[in-house]
Amino acid sequence: MNNLSIFIIFCVLASLSHAIELDFCVGDPSLPRGPQGYACKDPDKVTTDDFVFTGFRGEKTPNNVFGNNVTSVFSDKFPAFNGLGISMARLDFGVGGVIPIHSHRTSEVLILVKGSIIAGFIDTNNTAYYKILEVGDVMVFPQAMLHFQINVGKTPATAFVSLNGANPAIQLTPTTLFAGNLPADIAQKITLLSHKEVIRMKRIFGTA
Amino acid sequence: MNNLSIFIIFCVLASLSHAIELDFCVGDPSLPRGPQGYACKDPDKVTTDDFVFTGFRGEKTPNNVFGNNVTSVFSDKFPAFNGLGISMARLDFGVGGVIPIHSHRTSEVLILVKGSIIAGFIDTNNTAYYKILEVGDVMVFPQAMLHFQINVGKTPATAFVSLNGANPAIQLTPTTLFAGNLPADIAQKITLLSHKEVIRMKRIFGTA
Amino acid sequence: MNNLSIFIIFCVLASLSHAIELDFCVGDPSLPRGPQGYACKDPDKVTTDDFVFTGFRGEKTPNNVFGNNVTSVFSDKFPAFNGLGISMARLDFGVGGVIPIHSHRTSEVLILVKGSIIAGFIDTNNTAYYKILEVGDVMVFPQAMLHFQINVGKTPATAFVSLNGANPAIQLTPTTLFAGNLPADIAQKITLLSHKEVIRMKRIFGTA
Amino acid sequence: MNNLSIFIIFCVLASLSHAIELDFCVGDPSLPRGPQGYACKDPDKVTTDDFVFTGFRGEKTPNNVFGNNVTSVFSDKFPAFNGLGISMARLDFGVGGVIPIHSHRTSEVLILVKGSIIAGFIDTNNTAYYKILEVGDVMVFPQAMLHFQINVGKTPATAFVSLNGANPAIQLTPTTLFAGNLPADIAQKITLLSHKEVIRMKRIFGTA
Amino acid sequence: MNNLSIFIIFCVLASLSHAIELDFCVGDPSLPRGPQGYACKDPDKVTTDDFVFTGFRGEKTPNNVFGNNVTSVFSDKFPAFNGLGISMARLDFGVGGVIPIHSHRTSEVLILVKGSIIAGFIDTNNTAYYKILEVGDVMVFPQAMLHFQINVGKTPATAFVSLNGANPAIQLTPTTLFAGNLPADIAQKITLLSHKEVIRMKRIFGTA
Amino acid sequence: MNNLSIFIIFCVLASLSHAIELDFCVGDPSLPRGPQGYACKDPDKVTTDDFVFTGFRGEKTPNNVFGNNVTSVFSDKFPAFNGLGISMARLDFGVGGVIPIHSHRTSEVLILVKGSIIAGFIDTNNTAYYKILEVGDVMVFPQAMLHFQINVGKTPATAFVSLNGANPAIQLTPTTLFAGNLPADIAQKITLLSHKEVIRMKRIFGTA
Repeated sequence: MNNLSIFIIFCVLASLSHAIELDFCVGDPSLPRGPQGYACKDPDKVTTDDFVFTGFRGEKTPNNVFGNNVTSVFSDKFPAFNGLGISMARLDFGVGGVIPIHSHRTSEVLILVKGSIIAGFIDTNNTAYYKILEVGDVMVFPQAMLHFQINVGKTPATAFVSLNGANPAIQLTPTTLFAGNLPADIAQKITLLSHKEVIRMKRIFGTA
Repeated sequence: MNNLSIFIIFCVLASLSHAIELDFCVGDPSLPRGPQGYACKDPDKVTTDDFVFTGFRGEKTPNNVFGNNVTSVFSDKFPAFNGLGISMARLDFGVGGVIPIHSHRTSEVLILVKGSIIAGFIDTNNTAYYKILEVGDVMVFPQAMLHFQINVGKTPATAFVSLNGANPAIQLTPTTLFAGNLPADIAQKITLLSHKEVIRMKRIFGTA
Repeated sequence: MNNLSIFIIFCVLASLSHAIELDFCVGDPSLPRGPQGYACKDPDKVTTDDFVFTGFRGEKTPNNVFGNNVTSVFSDKFPAFNGLGISMARLDFGVGGVIPIHSHRTSEVLILVKGSIIAGFIDTNNTAYYKILEVGDVMVFPQAMLHFQINVGKTPATAFVSLNGANPAIQLTPTTLFAGNLPADIAQKITLLSHKEVIRMKRIFGTA
Repeated sequence: MNNLSIFIIFCVLASLSHAIELDFCVGDPSLPRGPQGYACKDPDKVTTDDFVFTGFRGEKTPNNVFGNNVTSVFSDKFPAFNGLGISMARLDFGVGGVIPIHSHRTSEVLILVKGSIIAGFIDTNNTAYYKILEVGDVMVFPQAMLHFQINVGKTPATAFVSLNGANPAIQLTPTTLFAGNLPADIAQKITLLSHKEVIRMKRIFGTA
Repeated sequence: MNNLSIFIIFCVLASLSHAIELDFCVGDPSLPRGPQGYACKDPDKVTTDDFVFTGFRGEKTPNNVFGNNVTSVFSDKFPAFNGLGISMARLDFGVGGVIPIHSHRTSEVLILVKGSIIAGFIDTNNTAYYKILEVGDVMVFPQAMLHFQINVGKTPATAFVSLNGANPAIQLTPTTLFAGNLPADIAQKITLLSHKEVIRMKRIFGTA
Repeated sequence: MNNLSIFIIFCVLASLSHAIELDFCVGDPSLPRGPQGYACKDPDKVTTDDFVFTGFRGEKTPNNVFGNNVTSVFSDKFPAFNGLGISMARLDFGVGGVIPIHSHRTSEVLILVKGSIIAGFIDTNNTAYYKILEVGDVMVFPQAMLHFQINVGKTPATAFVSLNGANPAIQLTPTTLFAGNLPADIAQKITLLSHKEVIRMKRIFGTA
């Protein structure tokens, strides 16, 4: 039996050693994932660093057509969230930047720490609830409702959001419709948008 | 004490009489509603008819700009669903009719019983999954994912859907953006659509 | 290192590659199963066909002593249901056919698409709620309550049911008691049925 | 305004005063009940006695045809369980007494404190799992599975069970089928039992 | 019938008018509360302001013996959180200030926006995980685990936390043991602390 | 290919064979564990013995500084609890023995079967609810609330508790603070206890 086989044996046995406690289940992306999240990293190898995320430090500048920079911290980037039903994101807005209309499986709470934004959501009666927030203000976006944020100040803006799911699956409406493989004719029929506009949108995302 | 007062007393006492069993909680819309649904109708007044919905009988013809007729049966129309975490809808499509792009809090399963439709959904990687279904085919739409159906046959089509929530809160993207009180300039910014197209869409729904 | 070892390495590495997104978790029955369902199939290998079930097409004729033909579509047959908390079944009844008294962990909603049946359930006060349904009628059976359906028409009947669980675990009372390894004397004591009747029932299922 | 009106005002205002904390929600059966349980008793009126149940003290002798005496402590009898998702029952068996085949929405754990019983359940493959328990033994009955207990000792037996639901809705199969308003002909069809046996069973419960 | 009676009728009818949609359930503390939260405010009276909390604006200085100032925003203070399973708090620390050891029903995520703190939790194996955080760092505290924060910088510090429950029930260990009605002799026995120390602690909280 | 490789192949294939039914999910600690529990043991190898725990038989004498002996039966010791959301413990108290102040993620119900104890809990308003229980009495401890039990009789005492979680993660406050790796200076700051007392407590647990 050669070394590679031994390595495999070691890996299999190591990865399958069971957790004695389940106070937490830091995700191990190398193990099979189930509908409720990743399998747990061996608790004997978990350290404090597993529970601390440092990727929000420093400045973040807009990096896309929407004029925003979203740093999502879900269970795939921060495995400590696995199984705990909570996650975060940092939203940075350039002047005039927006987080376009989007939804996700979970509810979200936002706190504005810099600048001035309009934040809002629309309910299933098509009623929009939106307002200019100032620094320190908190807004909640109920589960699955379409919502958005717009920087309406003269400076960049920054907000933190928390979501009550470890992997909330953010779905941006514009990219969903126009940035992937959905054919233009289907996009047109299911939105009532004009053919010309659908093509214009797909060009923005490089899919026309 | 006059008759109205007596009536109130009667109402209050009647409505507050407690349920002995909770095998079911047929909703009573006259009582306060909580985050998990309506308060329960007095079980002594519940009959078999509370558990049977007959509103799907007969033909349904398209009644809107999308060329569809959706008969939703959620807990507000069929209080037996209250607290049970399940609901239904009947979807009727005229020739060329569509159910526009939409989402909801729950998962959905569809069975086609007449005609031929394209059904599909798009995931958060912007990958669209869509296919022509024939009579008897079943398709599942995962929780919160944007999805759609299009009648691609030469005849009307009919499908039944079931959702694992008593009140799944269907949110149609086009009406959310253009049929309510969301201002045109906000709609434009959060979608990247052109001003002209936003106005065209709002005209379709009579809100421009 | 021989070919079989290489095959194992490949299998292990392949099966353990992690999912980046969790919009859905199409079950992979070759991986370990947890209390909440199967581990997820590699999302890169998921196609539209994973979300479409075609096994309800065509005619279904009775195939058992109850005069029914039940085509259950749970997560083991249709892995797309895995983790989504929903499933379906098609019920076909011969003339006089029945779905015997049974229960399951979840609630169920039924829609009759052909024929005429009596459907009903009994609550924990021993009150039976039952009614003749006609085509298009919907009935809901609350979670865990014993229920049944009987074809009372002169033709075959067909219904579709949806359940709010991916694997609802249907338990038919007659087969539970008489078609398995439960000894006749225990079956007799825990039902108060006569010894003679227990033996007659076990003969129907070939276990006497 | 007379005294009765004043009384009503007092009652309405009193009952609607809100809870500041929700560490617990001792049920108030005089208020409307929702799908998740009773509304909460005013926490200012809650005392230690609300959390202590003394009804299990003393001897319990068989009081029915099954030779058992079941003291269920669900949220209707012990409102402190309301909203906490847990409940209990004390099972007393005469010599030869049984808890007949039954099921409920929740899982159950049993501990035998006196005597000797056979306890068992049957899964959805019709496989029965049963065993003689002695004092101190614990058995778990998985959610919704049909299960039973039989005193096989020469003395009375006592067990305590705990269920992970505040109101688990116990459904005894024999009484469900024969002790209520389900007509004999329906009971016969949905069980395959003989007409004669159905009538015999209904006579035991006084419904023939 | 006098005016007060009319007022009551009005109140009862008004408060019992039912919600047509349940996209959200802004809590109405004047209605009965259930185990899952408050009953819903009439959605016709809900405005954007219901979803925005402004109480985090400005400076907060320490106001207690621990040298901290905690501004909790749970569903009782911000009824929009009702039923959505999410909440927030702002933590301000004076120099040397601490949030003493505490726990709650939910998980918590913290982001430090000013100063430098040690944050940590202890698992059920008595292993402590703690670390100095700098501005922008995020730490997660798993559900129900005892945890704490200490300002270790030379300036005041501020953090925001989000919890995945609308009313997470924060329980500070020192006040639980020494600031309420728990008798000193019981506190002593269940902690193994000395009598003298228990009395010293109760004096800090004015209960000795 | 040598024997060890064959053994690995056998193990991998065996462990990955999928469950056809999921009436239960007896945990297999040799497979990866997820946030919702262990993966399921092959159901073909499950026998009645998997569902019966016999470790509560006989006498249990105090084995620690608290004068108690706690026999916890969680999913790691009794894998049948895996996925079922229920567990148990047996509490034995010497004369004067205590279960010190502790909390866990789930609710708990206790039944006293021998002796006389004071049982109590404290809510988040620092209100203690405590009472002397006699044999047969039941007390419920709401989810996550700190609670305790003290033998106040002249003889040993025994109680059984059931918790609505398969692995409820019991966290004893004294050992959390003083029996692990939490430094004395941190323990002092987050409790307000004196340095001297912290050291005294750490000495009791051998960590000073």
